[in-house]
Amino acid sequence: MIQERIEKFRQKMKEYQATVYVVPSSDCHESEYVCAHYRAREYLSGFTGSAGTLVITLEEAALFTDGRYFLQAEQQLAGTGICLFRMGEPGVPKVETYVKEKLTEGGKLGFDGRVLGAFQAEELSRAAKEKGAGVLMTEDLVGQIWADRPGIPDSVLYLLGEHVTGEGTGSKLKRVRRRMEEEGADAHVLASLDDIAWILNLRGGDIPHVPVVLSYLYMEKDACIWYVRSQVVTEEIREKLSEKKVQIRAYEAIYEDLKRLPGGSKVLLDKKKVNSRLYFCLPEGVEVLDRKNPSEAMKAVKNEIELSNLREAHRKEGLAFTRLMRRVKTHGVEEELTERSAAEYLRQCREEQEHYLDDSFAPICAYGEHGAVVHYSATKESDRRLEKGGFFLVDAGGHYLEGTTDTTRTFVLGETDEEQKRMFTAVCRGNLHLAYARFLYGCSGCQLDVLCREPLWEMAMDYRHGTGHGVGYLLNVHEGPNAIRWKLPEGRESPAVLEAGMVTTDEPGIYLEGKYGIRTENELVCKTGVKNEYGQFMEFEILTMTPIDLDGILPKEMTRQERAWLNAYHAKVYKTLAPDLSEEERAWLREYTREI
Amino acid sequence: MIQERIEKFRQKMKEYQATVYVVPSSDCHESEYVCAHYRAREYLSGFTGSAGTLVITLEEAALFTDGRYFLQAEQQLAGTGICLFRMGEPGVPKVETYVKEKLTEGGKLGFDGRVLGAFQAEELSRAAKEKGAGVLMTEDLVGQIWADRPGIPDSVLYLLGEHVTGEGTGSKLKRVRRRMEEEGADAHVLASLDDIAWILNLRGGDIPHVPVVLSYLYMEKDACIWYVRSQVVTEEIREKLSEKKVQIRAYEAIYEDLKRLPGGSKVLLDKKKVNSRLYFCLPEGVEVLDRKNPSEAMKAVKNEIELSNLREAHRKEGLAFTRLMRRVKTHGVEEELTERSAAEYLRQCREEQEHYLDDSFAPICAYGEHGAVVHYSATKESDRRLEKGGFFLVDAGGHYLEGTTDTTRTFVLGETDEEQKRMFTAVCRGNLHLAYARFLYGCSGCQLDVLCREPLWEMAMDYRHGTGHGVGYLLNVHEGPNAIRWKLPEGRESPAVLEAGMVTTDEPGIYLEGKYGIRTENELVCKTGVKNEYGQFMEFEILTMTPIDLDGILPKEMTRQERAWLNAYHAKVYKTLAPDLSEEERAWLREYTREI
Repeated sequence: MIQERIEKFRQKMKEYQATVYVVPSSDCHESEYVCAHYRAREYLSGFTGSAGTLVITLEEAALFTDGRYFLQAEQQLAGTGICLFRMGEPGVPKVETYVKEKLTEGGKLGFDGRVLGAFQAEELSRAAKEKGAGVLMTEDLVGQIWADRPGIPDSVLYLLGEHVTGEGTGSKLKRVRRRMEEEGADAHVLASLDDIAWILNLRGGDIPHVPVVLSYLYMEKDACIWYVRSQVVTEEIREKLSEKKVQIRAYEAIYEDLKRLPGGSKVLLDKKKVNSRLYFCLPEGVEVLDRKNPSEAMKAVKNEIELSNLREAHRKEGLAFTRLMRRVKTHGVEEELTERSAAEYLRQCREEQEHYLDDSFAPICAYGEHGAVVHYSATKESDRRLEKGGFFLVDAGGHYLEGTTDTTRTFVLGETDEEQKRMFTAVCRGNLHLAYARFLYGCSGCQLDVLCREPLWEMAMDYRHGTGHGVGYLLNVHEGPNAIRWKLPEGRESPAVLEAGMVTTDEPGIYLEGKYGIRTENELVCKTGVKNEYGQFMEFEILTMTPIDLDGILPKEMTRQERAWLNAYHAKVYKTLAPDLSEEERAWLREYTREI
Repeated sequence: MIQERIEKFRQKMKEYQATVYVVPSSDCHESEYVCAHYRAREYLSGFTGSAGTLVITLEEAALFTDGRYFLQAEQQLAGTGICLFRMGEPGVPKVETYVKEKLTEGGKLGFDGRVLGAFQAEELSRAAKEKGAGVLMTEDLVGQIWADRPGIPDSVLYLLGEHVTGEGTGSKLKRVRRRMEEEGADAHVLASLDDIAWILNLRGGDIPHVPVVLSYLYMEKDACIWYVRSQVVTEEIREKLSEKKVQIRAYEAIYEDLKRLPGGSKVLLDKKKVNSRLYFCLPEGVEVLDRKNPSEAMKAVKNEIELSNLREAHRKEGLAFTRLMRRVKTHGVEEELTERSAAEYLRQCREEQEHYLDDSFAPICAYGEHGAVVHYSATKESDRRLEKGGFFLVDAGGHYLEGTTDTTRTFVLGETDEEQKRMFTAVCRGNLHLAYARFLYGCSGCQLDVLCREPLWEMAMDYRHGTGHGVGYLLNVHEGPNAIRWKLPEGRESPAVLEAGMVTTDEPGIYLEGKYGIRTENELVCKTGVKNEYGQFMEFEILTMTPIDLDGILPKEMTRQERAWLNAYHAKVYKTLAPDLSEEERAWLREYTREI
């Protein structure tokens, strides 16, 4: 099927004289996850991962993806004729290098300008020019062959009050405008959906598990225009926004509006966060100030109300996760639970909690060897029954009105051998070393990552993904600019300095292909600690409230300090969750949060 | 005296209409340490530290230095009227910012173009232009008031054979030329003395404790000119270099030669490693390729012969240090040893070793509160007698024909209290965590630094200096591009990725002003370890061979792993040193390398 689609697509390419065509994974807003309508790369390649770029030439097809998806892509691309390029591995070219190599004089590079980011489009266009090739950026060729393409959803929008957000839209607009002024910008163009949702204190559901609204925002000192499909805006929202002097215009109108910007204007935008069609709409004479969106750093720092809400969200998520853990470990095998039915049960446990809105991403429930596929997603065909022995890895999260969660626990089913316990313990030790680190202000996750990895590196093991990512507040489960990673993929910016209020995950793992996967993930909020003559010390508070399965722990592999950390964490988990548990559940939790 | 000099200097400034004058600490080669002739900054300010920039205006005088020298500068500047600027502290401006602020329209910025680096001179000249001020870069105004200025030494030069360097000059020239070709350079200008000494396999002694020769090197594809004061070159050296097609010309002739370079030539040079006069000699039309000197990365990676020699150098240094340790700890107090006489004894112990050439830097022997001055240097006046109780910190190194060493040990004299032992133990733990780290290839010292600091950060302590620096091979004791540091002072480049063969120090410390200082420094050589599906793992070998004083160690504060590391290290120290010790010394060493 994939081969047929690609053949059909090549006919289209020939029709438009395109010799190389690039299909990225994003929508018009450079989103990481996209709604079904925008899954062109998936449609054409069969690869369902969230990150990956497909490059089609008249003879070849290449998919570029990162370490999280190597195994999955290999499986999904088998038999399609598409060649897998493992990004970051030695000798693997960058997408730009590959495209440039494939372009020939008189050839033509094609892409859909609405979905390819401005930064990458500029790079690729430059490469095309250098090779004497043309560029076609106005045509969505995938759309032309995609017969039953899904539509764009009209999800329900809702406004968030200050008891949820801790800061009104007026204040947020003011702060962004102050930064615009500091940068000397007359205007600011935003396409990133989470920034827009954060500024407007508005949520929707236009992308599965991402509570955002497909829209653009245009700001000046005294004006603000929200470009959105009018059918989804209620009268109440229109009124509320009008109070903040936010005008509403048609979603697609931004393209024509940008073309009419006066020459000499200075426009602040992030080339990596706007699509290239928007960017190329800016008339000559407009100066682009290519900066991070000011709202990116602002929304990463959660305010006191958000933090207090988040603790509540994690208490609820902890109850759900702990109930899943108990069921899986005590009756999972007899009850013939499967990866999918366990996920369903977790969702039910969440639904019992007040203010639960949605899962924050498609859960990863992976038994045995499936756990080694970092971003495994159980399908009807792959769904496995839990069995005695082995690990069951669950990476899942929820959106509550009090915020977004992201937790991973690996449950030990029955007996496990010493070697597996050593691995499980090392992952736990890495997790604790980061969570309990004290560090001087000024550190970013680039410097701290090694604390988490060292227990694995000692054993000559590693995990091929970052240690942690920022988490949005009732927003994207992956959010910048904070992250914990020592290695920067080419072109990726260094993680931001950790500020008090930033929430980042801490998720080391071990993945043995064909055998099992272990990952333990907590969310950490950065806080100020002691301040003395050496500077401002910072530390973390663990938000996640779910036991780390003691059946996988070898206490003798841990130092006294590490055991004390784990015991302190478990004591807090017990204290936080116990009041809402049944007596039976409480007795079980006491056992699984016991001191070691 | 300082005030008088500054007043006299201001008269000179007025004579030349200079309103702001910058006096850096370097010589014509941007050296870190300089010979007496070039100590203009010290002459004018009284501050003797190795790093610091003096800025004089007609009304004010400001000295900028870094954290290593805060205490010392404070003491030495007292009463001079010079204001101390603590670089890197919050709110302290950069030199460039300060200079710019002080310049006014119609004013004039002055500096000696021979000693101010090209990069900084360009930045400062730009600032002057922006403020509408002129620039005077041809006059050495300090020289004009410096009556009894010392001359430039005529030290003895010597060539090193391949049994010392492991690689001949021909091969080194070839490697550098290959890099020139890759960069598309027609010519390459080198002013950095260690690069030149490394390429030519030549050593001298033009700077105290730095075995280099004041000279410049100019390279083309087929030509190489060494600009050096002809009186120091022997016939033998002339012949040997001529075999490698290296011509010799007068030291100062390079300035006129550069002026005659043909337009259109591409010249590779490192703006941070050539003085501004050289740089501004390049005629219009010459294209500068501002790159690191290719030899910098090459000489940082020690070859197998150098490494095997280095092990021998460290064995010798270990014997000397261990003898000092034994004497200090067993008889130091009764014998009324002082900071200076202990340093002298260490030198004697070194001199007993074959192939000892010189100290690699002025030793830091600091008893009690002197230890808190990171770069303390005992003078006749400050010299203190060792007493029972307290710490004696010795940071010293030697040049041997087999390489350069740099060691710090802190000796416990008599009884010390629990709190002091906790501090001593934390420093030792930090040191061990770095030394025994295993890490994936691709890490630099920026990511690893935290391993060393974490035991101190846990206690809300820190040290205000990098964790480690590269060490030259019979060359500069501070050498790039490798280093261990998490925090980058503004404008400083990130440490290089650690390559097998790089030698870096590992020197955490604790400094309590007015009380004591503790530092434990080993040199580490980076080596390749296991290679598996996760990548190439790297590890360190400890070169330094001297006990870490067990009288300061609290075993209960250490993990089993940490004790095992320390025991393994001490076992190796004993095994390495024992064969050359007397029976009495050996018995003592056995005690001080015992298992804990």
